[in-house]
Amino acid sequence: MTAILLTVGDEILLGQIVDTNAAWLGEKLALTGIDVRRSETVGDSEEAIKAALGRAYADGTDLVVVTGGLGPTADDRTRPAVAGFFGRRLVLHQDLLDGLLERYAARERTMPEMGRLMAEVPEGFEVVPNPIGTAPGLWGERVVGTHVQRAVLMPGVPYEMKAMARETVLPRIRDLQPGAVLHRTLLTVGRGESDIADLVEPVAARFPEGVGVAYLPSRGKVRVRVTARGAERSPTQAALDAATAGLRDALGDLVFGEDAVLLEGVVQDLLVERGLTLAIAESCTGGALAARITRIAGASRAFVGGVVAYDNDIKQRVLGVPPDLLDAHGAVSEPVARAMAEKVRELLRGDVGLSVTGIAGPTGGTLDKPVGTVWIACAHEGGTASVLLRLTQDRSLNIGLSVSAGLDLLRRTLRTSSGAGDVVR
Amino acid sequence: MTAILLTVGDEILLGQIVDTNAAWLGEKLALTGIDVRRSETVGDSEEAIKAALGRAYADGTDLVVVTGGLGPTADDRTRPAVAGFFGRRLVLHQDLLDGLLERYAARERTMPEMGRLMAEVPEGFEVVPNPIGTAPGLWGERVVGTHVQRAVLMPGVPYEMKAMARETVLPRIRDLQPGAVLHRTLLTVGRGESDIADLVEPVAARFPEGVGVAYLPSRGKVRVRVTARGAERSPTQAALDAATAGLRDALGDLVFGEDAVLLEGVVQDLLVERGLTLAIAESCTGGALAARITRIAGASRAFVGGVVAYDNDIKQRVLGVPPDLLDAHGAVSEPVARAMAEKVRELLRGDVGLSVTGIAGPTGGTLDKPVGTVWIACAHEGGTASVLLRLTQDRSLNIGLSVSAGLDLLRRTLRTSSGAGDVVR
Repeated sequence: MTAILLTVGDEILLGQIVDTNAAWLGEKLALTGIDVRRSETVGDSEEAIKAALGRAYADGTDLVVVTGGLGPTADDRTRPAVAGFFGRRLVLHQDLLDGLLERYAARERTMPEMGRLMAEVPEGFEVVPNPIGTAPGLWGERVVGTHVQRAVLMPGVPYEMKAMARETVLPRIRDLQPGAVLHRTLLTVGRGESDIADLVEPVAARFPEGVGVAYLPSRGKVRVRVTARGAERSPTQAALDAATAGLRDALGDLVFGEDAVLLEGVVQDLLVERGLTLAIAESCTGGALAARITRIAGASRAFVGGVVAYDNDIKQRVLGVPPDLLDAHGAVSEPVARAMAEKVRELLRGDVGLSVTGIAGPTGGTLDKPVGTVWIACAHEGGTASVLLRLTQDRSLNIGLSVSAGLDLLRRTLRTSSGAGDVVR
Repeated sequence: MTAILLTVGDEILLGQIVDTNAAWLGEKLALTGIDVRRSETVGDSEEAIKAALGRAYADGTDLVVVTGGLGPTADDRTRPAVAGFFGRRLVLHQDLLDGLLERYAARERTMPEMGRLMAEVPEGFEVVPNPIGTAPGLWGERVVGTHVQRAVLMPGVPYEMKAMARETVLPRIRDLQPGAVLHRTLLTVGRGESDIADLVEPVAARFPEGVGVAYLPSRGKVRVRVTARGAERSPTQAALDAATAGLRDALGDLVFGEDAVLLEGVVQDLLVERGLTLAIAESCTGGALAARITRIAGASRAFVGGVVAYDNDIKQRVLGVPPDLLDAHGAVSEPVARAMAEKVRELLRGDVGLSVTGIAGPTGGTLDKPVGTVWIACAHEGGTASVLLRLTQDRSLNIGLSVSAGLDLLRRTLRTSSGAGDVVR
């Protein structure tokens, strides 16, 4: 089954918004086994939308997934364009109108007159429920000769589109396909793609027919996606589970979770499970480590606070890092990183102290300690662990990689039973 | 003149990377006066690239801007596809090869054999220099009847593409267009689009023919873009300057800069100019305010450090906020925000103290203080200013808006001569 993505919106075409929907849908459709042929973006014009549909079906494409242009304003042209292209009238869908009126009533608001437009549906199209917004989705098809030309229309607001796709559209597309295509993704942190591949390949070489892996690297992390294809769901699921278990053994502690889990969420859960609180002292990351921990809800269950010790005076006077340590080794050194972690644990009365000190760049490097030199340390009841990172010339990348490495050091410290000393180096 | 954007790459089509190039190019081309008709993404396939070129020129499009697929590996198919479509041979470009060999030699590396492929050019195409990478760009055209079909090919790596576009491709496209299209963008913070429009519209109503404004809202900021079109550059520039000056008067202190400037950069420059240092105490933003200040290079010239006082114990014991203030008013209150700013200024010995305390959500709200209630304060020699924000239900958005509002309070405090008291409320 082949598909084309069609994004509608002047704001996308003219670059006022970056289109993230197409990437998300492209991945999800490909994972469903669909052959995604191309993605197009056109402006808010009926003619442009019709032309795009014409190009798509002329190529023999089975499904066009349209996002955007479904709202109630004058520049929302997707509904009339699709109706026109399929040769259908727009008809009022009474249930849909009642639902819209109820939604507005529940919020004690009157629906604007234009809202009625959202209840107009190309004749013969089915309504796809929007679980979290007003603009409904639509699903329709026509048969030309032997070619079933399907179209699904979803709103452009990303979280509405994703909810609708997850709940209705993707399962429905999956049901149109023969066989099963299943996935699981192992999330690793701390090693590059080639290191991960060295561990994965000997295991993957023994995978049965229809099971494969793909590597998806990003800042400091590599996602290992396992895909299993088969005629029936149940044996395919079993093959996927067996393959994933084998890879988990091979990758061991490098795996911090599966699928959509976040590293900071894993760390928060570990802290809460073990009843521990966290305090952070950071220099070169400038607050980004604490911000990563606190960006997910519930952080206050485990995070007490942090000190951004940018200036050495603060490392010394506020945190209490001994001046002779700073003089003898410099601020970017193992002894100072360890002292920062230990002192912030005392000062903020956290059970665990996590620290980062380094040279983010682009300037400030020396021969001994070039830009990208970063020490991280983690202090707790059982001792202090520390790790040296040798990163890049890029400030933003160095900050991001240091934050991930700090979270990972904390994760590994929390997972080891004693958690003491340099076991994680 | 009409254009179509063509992005080549499986990793984009299948969602492993979000395409930011198309948005950037779409905006830049539209600003040059080009009619951008659509944007397409296809996979790494010669056939798919040729088909996309065929669709583009069949529509009468004048220019196809292709990004991606220009590297030296087997899945880089743009060069042979374009050569094939235009009916040209790929010929070795000796100067280009010499340049590539030199580049490798300068880094004491040997060029891999496949690197030679990057020196193969469709016959008759011009080389567009890549100022910061190896893969060169290409520019070519053919005439079919009266239709001049132009193609420009650029690498997919965003910073290489942007450098090449800025230095060579966009100026060249501009020269192909009659007349002048000029822009300036005023950056505002702290008010919504409709507030900004209320101030702008009376001024814009008196703009001469050919001068217009557009509003580009994003998290807490509204960009006001002024566009002037005319036959000659010099009077068009004068009209643009006059219009921008009028809007600057109307918007006053809401404008923090022009074009590509960052709010945190403006704040850093103001601190450095005035020889002042900054200390931050933050609660609900959890480190994100300090991280925003330190993400740009040179932050250590003006930023001494911060305290992330997530737990009330830290507000009290480490920062020194009086316990009776916390008891009487709660952590999210004007008195506590002011005390946090004043105390962090003392503790970290900064010239200016900036604080944020609030309820980011999704939980933790009360009837009196719903989710989204945030107090920010700025303390310095002349006094303390404070501002109440009533934000949204969305945690991530609340953190982002609080950070921008904090930076803006600091900016406005630094700009007022006395800087004291509640002048900025």
